[in-house]
Amino acid sequence: MTISQIHASEVKPMTAAQRALAILGCFDQDHLLLTLSEISRRSGLSLSTTHRLVGELREWGALERAQDGRYAIGMRILELGSLEPQGMRLRDVALPFLGDLQAATNANVHLSVRDGHDVVYVDSLRARGGATVLSRLGGRWPLHATGTGLVLLAFAPVEFREEVLASPLKRFTADTITDPDELRRVLADVRRTGVGIVQDSITSDCTSVGVPVRGARDRIVGAIAVTISAKSSPHTVLPALSATARAISRGLGAPSAIGRPSTAA
Amino acid sequence: MTISQIHASEVKPMTAAQRALAILGCFDQDHLLLTLSEISRRSGLSLSTTHRLVGELREWGALERAQDGRYAIGMRILELGSLEPQGMRLRDVALPFLGDLQAATNANVHLSVRDGHDVVYVDSLRARGGATVLSRLGGRWPLHATGTGLVLLAFAPVEFREEVLASPLKRFTADTITDPDELRRVLADVRRTGVGIVQDSITSDCTSVGVPVRGARDRIVGAIAVTISAKSSPHTVLPALSATARAISRGLGAPSAIGRPSTAA
Repeated sequence: MTISQIHASEVKPMTAAQRALAILGCFDQDHLLLTLSEISRRSGLSLSTTHRLVGELREWGALERAQDGRYAIGMRILELGSLEPQGMRLRDVALPFLGDLQAATNANVHLSVRDGHDVVYVDSLRARGGATVLSRLGGRWPLHATGTGLVLLAFAPVEFREEVLASPLKRFTADTITDPDELRRVLADVRRTGVGIVQDSITSDCTSVGVPVRGARDRIVGAIAVTISAKSSPHTVLPALSATARAISRGLGAPSAIGRPSTAA
Repeated sequence: MTISQIHASEVKPMTAAQRALAILGCFDQDHLLLTLSEISRRSGLSLSTTHRLVGELREWGALERAQDGRYAIGMRILELGSLEPQGMRLRDVALPFLGDLQAATNANVHLSVRDGHDVVYVDSLRARGGATVLSRLGGRWPLHATGTGLVLLAFAPVEFREEVLASPLKRFTADTITDPDELRRVLADVRRTGVGIVQDSITSDCTSVGVPVRGARDRIVGAIAVTISAKSSPHTVLPALSATARAISRGLGAPSAIGRPSTAA
């Protein structure tokens, strides 16, 4: 297959680098292992182009071959991903405190940052026997559907908030907030209370309680959340969650958290 | 600059995909943020090629721009890296147990897998006040210089062991084992005891104690380690470390860990 044939089958010509990235983009949480023909189909690239690029990606360590012969994201990408500076800095400061929070609440805890209209989990500690959650390191969910997302959206600049409110709000369950007016009211509450709470928003029997994490100049740099069973009250975890957020914020140099030591420290 | 000029300046012509990967490969633990000209210099690519490829990588989310205008690895790579199946599966099972181990020992704990002649840390929990270690999620160190590396090397096939023993063994400190004959003796000890111990091997005042983690068919799939001050005895952490390795191995379906419940469970 020639370049012109490849281009003919696509809406817009891709550069070679974009084709390599398209191959990496075939992998997601539901597609951890793919055959060559699955990669070709999902990327829209010819089998011969896929074969050549997969070979180059594998040689570099971006892809690896599983025992069953299928391809997966390689260790080199895991390593490279750990260098993302926003997540790295937050994780470095937050991890011991998140461990304490998990031990104190025996629940799942997450640390999130905003990336576009989504939250990305830069760290996630799951308790044994904790509520079942779909999140994990590197997980990505829309802002409106998670506790940390509500917090990051509520405190984002108004133009960005309105951009998200004007875009389609994906529904996961009957309880996902998808009405822009309702979401606008909820966000005002989050700004007033400093806490974002969603219940059964992505899966049932799951409440996510999020609070902001601040850094230098008191800028909000991320959010942490505890995920509990919908039967539990958010008030049972809120003091520990707030104390943890203050401890992390102090570690990140947030002026508002420096003066008074948090009760958790 | 034309393609032929670029090629002329390199030992071997690179494909476009390889050039994009070379740009990602410019980033490491000591180079989290790079300017365009630093990327050009480190990759050996012309400034115009670098500019174009950085643009494509940034558009896809593989690179992001920091507030100071420099480039860094992007959130999309962090997300993609979390899909690496070997690390993901291990992390999923191991994390709660590693949290227990950290709480019990108040030390830094790691989970490693082998990648080529190195260990890669697929998870790392650092205690506040624990020994200072350079490792972290995604960190990479030579097998001969770490506790988990000794374990993974000791139990690797003999041909692979001899390949590593025949290759240059990098020295980090005066105590790094760099003599092949000494390393061969140490590895025999590790096979006999099931424990890999290195002292002051990468940094001073730091002992790393590693034990294997097994999976289906009792195959060794990784190793966990506790890092303690060189003043502490490995024997103080070994029971908790062994119990944790058994608990994780049982979670991964290792037959040898299923019969008798570990004391930590």
